Formats: sequence, C-alpha cells, structure tokens
Amino acid sequence: MPQISDRGKSMPASPIRKLVPYSEQAKRDGKKVYHLNIGQPDIPTPEVALEAIRNFDEKVIAYSHSAGNESYRKKLAGYYKSVGIDVDYTDLLITTGGSEALTFAFNSVMNPGDELIIPQPFYANYNAFANIVGVKIKPINATIKDGFALPPIEEFEKAITPKTKAILICNPNNPTGYLYSQEEIEQLGELAKKHDLYIFSDEVYREFCYDGHDHFSVMNLKGLEDNTILVDSVSKRYSACGVRIGAFVTKNKEVLATALKFAQSRLSPPSLGQVIGEASIDTPKEYFEEVYNEYIERRNYMVEALNKMEGVTCPMPKGAFYTITELPVDDTDKFCQWMLSDFSHKNQTVMMAPGSGFYEDAELGKQHVRIAYVLNKEDLTNAMEALEEGLKQYPGRTI
Amino acid sequence: MPQISDRGKSMPASPIRKLVPYSEQAKRDGKKVYHLNIGQPDIPTPEVALEAIRNFDEKVIAYSHSAGNESYRKKLAGYYKSVGIDVDYTDLLITTGGSEALTFAFNSVMNPGDELIIPQPFYANYNAFANIVGVKIKPINATIKDGFALPPIEEFEKAITPKTKAILICNPNNPTGYLYSQEEIEQLGELAKKHDLYIFSDEVYREFCYDGHDHFSVMNLKGLEDNTILVDSVSKRYSACGVRIGAFVTKNKEVLATALKFAQSRLSPPSLGQVIGEASIDTPKEYFEEVYNEYIERRNYMVEALNKMEGVTCPMPKGAFYTITELPVDDTDKFCQWMLSDFSHKNQTVMMAPGSGFYEDAELGKQHVRIAYVLNKEDLTNAMEALEEGLKQYPGRTI
Repeated sequence: MPQISDRGKSMPASPIRKLVPYSEQAKRDGKKVYHLNIGQPDIPTPEVALEAIRNFDEKVIAYSHSAGNESYRKKLAGYYKSVGIDVDYTDLLITTGGSEALTFAFNSVMNPGDELIIPQPFYANYNAFANIVGVKIKPINATIKDGFALPPIEEFEKAITPKTKAILICNPNNPTGYLYSQEEIEQLGELAKKHDLYIFSDEVYREFCYDGHDHFSVMNLKGLEDNTILVDSVSKRYSACGVRIGAFVTKNKEVLATALKFAQSRLSPPSLGQVIGEASIDTPKEYFEEVYNEYIERRNYMVEALNKMEGVTCPMPKGAFYTITELPVDDTDKFCQWMLSDFSHKNQTVMMAPGSGFYEDAELGKQHVRIAYVLNKEDLTNAMEALEEGLKQYPGRTI
Repeated sequence: MPQISDRGKSMPASPIRKLVPYSEQAKRDGKKVYHLNIGQPDIPTPEVALEAIRNFDEKVIAYSHSAGNESYRKKLAGYYKSVGIDVDYTDLLITTGGSEALTFAFNSVMNPGDELIIPQPFYANYNAFANIVGVKIKPINATIKDGFALPPIEEFEKAITPKTKAILICNPNNPTGYLYSQEEIEQLGELAKKHDLYIFSDEVYREFCYDGHDHFSVMNLKGLEDNTILVDSVSKRYSACGVRIGAFVTKNKEVLATALKFAQSRLSPPSLGQVIGEASIDTPKEYFEEVYNEYIERRNYMVEALNKMEGVTCPMPKGAFYTITELPVDDTDKFCQWMLSDFSHKNQTVMMAPGSGFYEDAELGKQHVRIAYVLNKEDLTNAMEALEEGLKQYPGRTI
C-alpha cells in the first residue's frame, strides 16, 4: 500500500472540528449540545443577499473571471473606501473565503523554510496553511494577564532571522477577541519597514469592534504599500460563512499579479457566493446596529458569567466574537472531550475548542479554551450553566 | 521592497486565460470573439438545479461539514453506483471544484521532489498544482498520429524512478478528447500495482463519451482500491462550472482521513454550490440525451471543417469536448494572439488556447491549439470560417 505524504502526516487536525465525532455521538445519545467551538453565528444572512440568490436568473452558472466578477470587485473597492481603506478594484482578487486569500499570500511570497512571525494564541488554521507551504511559524507569546495585547515589539524584533519573511496578525483577533490599537499596528509597520518584511493582516472581523474602539487597517500604514497584504472575508460581516467568498488585497502589483496566477490555476471563485457578496454590500446600516447590540449583550453576559465561575479567567474582548478563557482543569483537550462524552446537565452540554490548537507550543494552551459567543442569550445562558456544572464535576479539575 | 516566492516566479500562466487581455481589447475594438479557448459550455444548467437555488430558504448561509453536507454525499454515492462505481458516502469528500480535489490528492500523498507521470499533452493546470506542491511532472508523449491514445505502457515503466509516486490521467481526456479503453486503464493498473503507485484519475468528463464507447473508471480496477483516487466535478456534467463543486473519492481510508485534514483547514466547500450539486443529481435523462446529441453534432461538424482546412490535422475525439489540433503556423502562441490583436473576418475572430501550455516541454505544442467545441452550431460555423481565413492571412503560416 503506497504511503501518504509527510505534510499529510504533520497536518494538524482542526481544534475546532476534531471533537465533532464526540458531539455527533452526544447528539445521538439525545443530549442538546451548545456549539461554542466554531465561529458560526446564528445571525441571519442579510435579506438583501438572500433575495439576490432567490432572484438568480442566469441560465448557465458559468466560471467568473479568475479575479472575480468585475462588477463585484468594483463594488467591493467602494465598500473598502467607505471604511477608510483607499483601494482600487485592480488592487484586489475575490477568493474562495479568507482561507484561500491566506493561501495565496503564503504561496505568493514565502518559500519552504521561510519563517512567519505570529503572536500566539492564533487562529488554528494558520498552522495548517504554514504546514502546506512548508513555512515555519515563529510564535510570540501574548498573555492572558495583558488581555492578549500585542507583545512588546522587542520580542518580535528578537525573533527576526534572515529567514523571516512576514508577520501575520488577525485584527480584531480570533481567538482572543483583542483589538490592536493604531499605535500597536504602527509599531509593527515600523518593524516591517526596517526589516523589509511583509505584513499579512487578517481583518475579517473589522465590523466587530466594541466600546467605541476604532479599527485601524494595515492598509493605512504610510510607505508600507508594497509590504502589506489584507486578507478579508464576507463570512462574518454578513453571517454568510457558507458562501466561501473572501478577498486578497494589496497595492503591491507584483504580488497581486503572482496571486492571480494561483487564482487562475483554480479557475474562479464561487459564482453564487459572489452574487451574495455583491448584494451584501447594500446591507442597511440597521442590520449592523442590531448585530452589534446583540453581540455586546452576549459578550457582557458571557464574560461576567465566566469570571464568576471559580478559578475561571476571561479577559474582556474588544472585538470579534471569541474569547480565550482559562479554566481550572488539568487539560482542556481532555475536559472538552469529557464534556461531550461523559457529562450532561439537564441533558445539555457545551462544545468548546481546546486551547492547545491555538498555540504553536500546545502546552501553553492546556488550561485555555476558545469560546465563540455566537449563540442567542437564552442558549448562552444554558451553555454557561452547563459549563459551570461541568467544571464542578470534572474529575481533572485543579481547584 | 520584499520579494515574491520562488514558486510564485515559476508558477505558469494559464494557457487558457493568458490571452484574456487581448480578447478584452478585441471586444473593446468592437470585434465579436468566439471563445473556443475555455471549457465553458453554453449549455444551460439543468432547470432542477436552478430551481433549487431559487427556492433556497435557509436564513443563515452556514458552513457545511468540511467533507460536504451528508445529504449530498449520500446522494452522490448513489449517483456513482448508478454509473457503475461502487462507493459509499464515507469514501468521498465534496471539494471546491475538481481543482481542489486534485490539490488534496497531491498534498495528501506526494512530497516535494516526488515525481508524477502524466501522458502529455495534459490539462495545463496540472503543471500549476505540481508547482505549488513542488512535485516534478514526468511526461510521456502521446502523439497526434495515434489520436493521442495511451502511449505504450513500456514508456511509462521506463519513466519510473524511486521518486515516482503516482500516475495521473484524465479520462475522457482534456485537452485531447481521447477516451482510454478498459484495456488501457487495466494496463496502467497493473503497472501501478507492480510498482505500488497511486493512480489519480480525473474523470470529470465521464458523461461525454461518444460513438457507443463505454467509460471505464479506475475505481473498478480490482485489487487497486488503496491506490486509486478519483477526481470529479459537477462543472461539466451539469454545465455548472461556476458553482465550484467537485469530489475526492477513494477507498483508501488513510488517504481519505488525510485529505479531510486539508479539507478542515479551509473549513467547508461552498454551501450554495452544494445545493446545486445535490439537486442536479435529479436531472432528467432527456437533458443528457439532448446535450449528447448537441455535442455530437458540434464535434462532427467541427472536426470535418478543421480537417478540410489546408495543413490542419484534427483527430476525431471520442469524449469530452476538446481537440488538440495541429495548425500550419510557426508558433501557436503568436498565432492565437495575432488572431485577437491583428485579425478579424467580418468583424469576428476566434480565441483558442495555444498548445504550449499543455506540454511539459512547450516546444512540442508549438503547432498545436486546444479547441473546445462549447459553442452552438451557428457560432461554431462562424468561428471556423474566421479560423480558416486567419490561417490564410497569418504572416507566420508554414504552407
């Protein structure tokens, strides 16, 4: 029997999905499972988008341009202008989700063996994309006691070697919910300029900034136009995760032309998803206000509930809809599995993503879980109750 | 300014799309351009599929399972059984087009530096996927005089080295239109067994087999269940290229589990495309009969028209909707560009894909073009008239 590949062997299992067999079993056993493990909001996709797809009247669902439909690219450039990011439609490619935009970035500018600096904890699939391209992640530790703020810039500089090619940030941050300030972004920008590095910025949670904090995009770093690549997605903005539509944005024409060659090799991004993406730009302001208020309410409730539990620490997130929370347990990989397979409270339980998958060094995440507050208040209340009870009953609790 | 990557530099431009700037200019100049360059059929997507999307009534367009919706996987397994391929729904993953299925195959079982044997000419993007993964293609020459039949099996065996990991075929073949016989597939199977190689089989044109010839899938090779990976797509079968839905099929459980890890890293295949894919399985038989008759008529007309032109050779394709045709010109890269930028006949011209991109050794394709007969008879007639006239006027003609 022929062998699988080395990168197949080293490919990390998704921490968000690796417990799915246990949650499926729990459901078969009749338990209600609250999914706090995955950033799949319950918020409806905007009506204007759903309407566009119901009115789809083409006779042939054809390939689009490899860079995406021109009408959509133009409208998307207009959206960026409206949020203070001055790009032309020729500065962007429509991608198959933010995932593909990241893959284009990695493939276009990094060689196998190159190093990529990322503050950790970080979005688990960055590990997967780095593994595919053969890139080495150099993590810089952010800490829960600082609320996962940007680690001191000296730590980044110390990590730079001749192999370092780029710094990757997610802002607002998945999994921590931290929102980097303009000052923090500018510090990174200066460092990138000094060492001629790329900055990849995953800004898919741009619309989710709370408490009056503004979002500052790397695309607004002056003099860094050739160094910055913006990764975006419609998934969270319009609660349309399934359409698999994102964007790759850069003012660096050589990088864009290179990414286009990768885009051509997979022919085109999804046509129906582009219909949704284009129509979504007309989503009325009230939609975002409602969504904003809903998330603020969920966040405030959940953070308070978590911090009230004995031995639990949850910093207040300033953006996105995640927290990295510290739990008083021996090992969150075991605890999260136990919650699904051995525990229920009022026949209910909670699925969370173990922290280990969000760290290059899995040990650092052993007491952490990522929790996504993507459920309505009532479900969230039940979920918190089940979690609190689970923490009391879990044999591996540490207090 | 930071550098792009080595694989970005070596990434081949798509032969199907690299002339797009010229065709766009031709259109701006008011010329009618017949697109024979790309396998984008003008055949309508089945009504049953379009209806499903118009009736889409979910409130949230959510992520699906990374392997695709279970309901779709089950129905797709039923489709395979109906065409004589006995697989269970747990033997397959829904992918973002056939392109992603190929990428999963390459990533799951091949290491950088491994060798992949492919009869040439071959689908141009195989080059691109090999470049991304760092795999070396070892081409085996098929010839126009043999109608691009499978080259002698000894040629394949001679090309095998300790680095050889797999053989890749496309059946029916894009770009040649050749349909491999059961005997040819079995010869490949024996060779794969002897040397413990994988066979990747791209069978996206399965429904397009003409003149009473049957399709024989590698999935029916006995004793090779662990070696065979089927790559599929709904793009051509249901004229739904834009939905970006394909499938990765194998009985090798380790390979499937590995591919699933790659699938998880990109979260899920497009949700709306899966709606189309699932509904399409109910396409009535009459649809395929009409499509079949249409392609037969186009093929017969076009092959005859081409062979009537002085110095032109076009073998009769037994499947798919392409031919590799030999033209009496110095260099088809120049000729195809010239047809767009310098030529018109009755204000019309033709876009074709230069042959060079379908060969590992570009020189071998210098007199070849790939022509897709994806246009209706009237357009095809006009296109052939323009091509004939272009061949007469082209300064680099060789006769």
